[in-house]
Amino acid sequence: MDAKMYSERCDRTADRLREIGADGLLCFPSRNLQYLTGFHEEPGERHLFLVLPAEGDPALLVPALYETQIREGTTVPEVRTWEDGEDPVAAVRTLLADRNLREGHLLVDDRMWARFTQDLRAAAPAATWGLASEALVDLRIRKDGAELAALREAARVADAVIDDLRETADEHVGKSERALASWIAGRLETHGGSGVSFETVVGSGPNGAKPHHRSGDREIRAGDPVVLDFGTRVDGYPSDQTRTLVLAGEPPEGYPTVHEVVREAQAAAVDAIEPGIEAGAVDRVAREVIEEAGYGDAFVHRTGHGVGLDVHEEPYLVAGNDRSLEPGMVCSVEPGIYLPGRFGCRIEDLIVVTEDGAERLNRTDRGWR
Amino acid sequence: MDAKMYSERCDRTADRLREIGADGLLCFPSRNLQYLTGFHEEPGERHLFLVLPAEGDPALLVPALYETQIREGTTVPEVRTWEDGEDPVAAVRTLLADRNLREGHLLVDDRMWARFTQDLRAAAPAATWGLASEALVDLRIRKDGAELAALREAARVADAVIDDLRETADEHVGKSERALASWIAGRLETHGGSGVSFETVVGSGPNGAKPHHRSGDREIRAGDPVVLDFGTRVDGYPSDQTRTLVLAGEPPEGYPTVHEVVREAQAAAVDAIEPGIEAGAVDRVAREVIEEAGYGDAFVHRTGHGVGLDVHEEPYLVAGNDRSLEPGMVCSVEPGIYLPGRFGCRIEDLIVVTEDGAERLNRTDRGWR
Repeated sequence: MDAKMYSERCDRTADRLREIGADGLLCFPSRNLQYLTGFHEEPGERHLFLVLPAEGDPALLVPALYETQIREGTTVPEVRTWEDGEDPVAAVRTLLADRNLREGHLLVDDRMWARFTQDLRAAAPAATWGLASEALVDLRIRKDGAELAALREAARVADAVIDDLRETADEHVGKSERALASWIAGRLETHGGSGVSFETVVGSGPNGAKPHHRSGDREIRAGDPVVLDFGTRVDGYPSDQTRTLVLAGEPPEGYPTVHEVVREAQAAAVDAIEPGIEAGAVDRVAREVIEEAGYGDAFVHRTGHGVGLDVHEEPYLVAGNDRSLEPGMVCSVEPGIYLPGRFGCRIEDLIVVTEDGAERLNRTDRGWR
Repeated sequence: MDAKMYSERCDRTADRLREIGADGLLCFPSRNLQYLTGFHEEPGERHLFLVLPAEGDPALLVPALYETQIREGTTVPEVRTWEDGEDPVAAVRTLLADRNLREGHLLVDDRMWARFTQDLRAAAPAATWGLASEALVDLRIRKDGAELAALREAARVADAVIDDLRETADEHVGKSERALASWIAGRLETHGGSGVSFETVVGSGPNGAKPHHRSGDREIRAGDPVVLDFGTRVDGYPSDQTRTLVLAGEPPEGYPTVHEVVREAQAAAVDAIEPGIEAGAVDRVAREVIEEAGYGDAFVHRTGHGVGLDVHEEPYLVAGNDRSLEPGMVCSVEPGIYLPGRFGCRIEDLIVVTEDGAERLNRTDRGWR
């Protein structure tokens, strides 16, 4: 654990709170909490909060059964606990009072559950409320060296699984999508990843035309284009890339053309990225290639999203986002074409914005073979 | 998909809203949404809401890229869509206005993210706000026949993996906790489960003394008591059981006594369950056995939690919970003893409350061998 890094992040966050006129930040188990303390846990029904005031020391309030882990795993100076059967809301109220945060402008995790924001509103009835992203996006959006190293390694692991898939392609024909997803999860672990960073997408044949299909009982057949979108985590940071492969046989009529259009759109968008370009403009570049090829109506989602501790975060490459890209930002570039009842095609790489362009973190072949 | 079941659940929810004086219920991707519509998806950053008014027809507002799946997978009469690049909050405002829900008392998913509740507050500035559980707990807490069948089958799958573990115990000594967690995930799939219902706990030796340890790099050794807490899903419903096993060799001094105390506490709590007993009283039964044995300070969590579409839901078996148990409720019974630096022991089964007692859904041996 890099204690100095986490305490610097907390200090910078306090600076930022003062800059934007906020009095405190309240996190529950979230990627913001992980960014600020190193502690990660899925949200649960027990009250667990980081209270980070604009002035004064941060403190954690945690269920007693997390205490050992929290003390081993974080450097937050004060840790308070509450036990099952006690009233956690009373403990929250006391902590907020001790930090002079029962009024003022308080920011909460963008993903904090309503049951907790409701309790916080009751504990600080005179406060006004905003979202943590107002303070944290500008800190989290540019990745430092250690973050980039983890993202690169997570991308390498995912690429290695795509390479494995190509080498064993014949074996997977006849499997269900779900069985292939399970095989992918195993390979990700073998190559050094930790779990999956989101539910694996194996969209075979017509299922590939549903961009948010996960995986189901359909058997993969020779000639199916199969949309494969998955990732893992390394040191907490995720990968997220997509290849569309035909594992055996020849693809349906029209598929190679569609694949080539998506590949060109993706390449054009990556080529367009450089410091200063607006996120929305990158979306436009990909979209124009697909529109000119006559498939504009079949590209039904944005071109990409930022990737950090959260798999989806700023910068979103979407029409209307006027945020300028800067060196150190990491995002996905993932245009697609979806033809309902027939097939889909998506090609996705993560890129990091460099001083003069973009560098792809995913390097495995982008073709359908 | 059982269309009639879902529309009946929506009707009963509307009845319940009227009973408690609420005007509407708003769900995002949650287990409440799954309960009411059959559609399940992890929450994401795109606005997706079910609007269920106390009077009038429910409607879904979904991102355009989910449209095909939603129309195939639900029977909600009206589905509206919005596309990436459009303003979803304007669409929410229009939908709430059309259902006369821009004022009145509105309930939101207990787990709804703050970024969405903030947008809803902006879209319905004159409304007052409560939590969905106020209406839905009483509907979801008693399981029907189909729900019980799924819970039973999920428990059977988890039990089968414990049996596999016992049969192959020697093979796992020398593995890391993480590697064993990955093996368990694979076996759960093999026996017919779908994924893991929560992050698998493999707490070996001293790691077992941290009740919320997941799994790490520690190598499992002969003589380690290993806390194994995991589950999978069948038809959307989870399993969740714990065994503490010594995979090879002899346990540390004092361990067999601790194991026996936990086993007795668990048996006493299960025996105490019958219709009419308060949830908090079941906690007391388990706690008294452990206190009498002199380990009261080492039982640092509640005795159990309800299990349904959510792995943790009402009824919580915790001090102070005066909810009476009723036939059809399902909960975990999972006392534990945690001795920091040495080992931990937890034994957990799911039970369903019957007309005259409790029936265990998990049946595999509770001993440490």
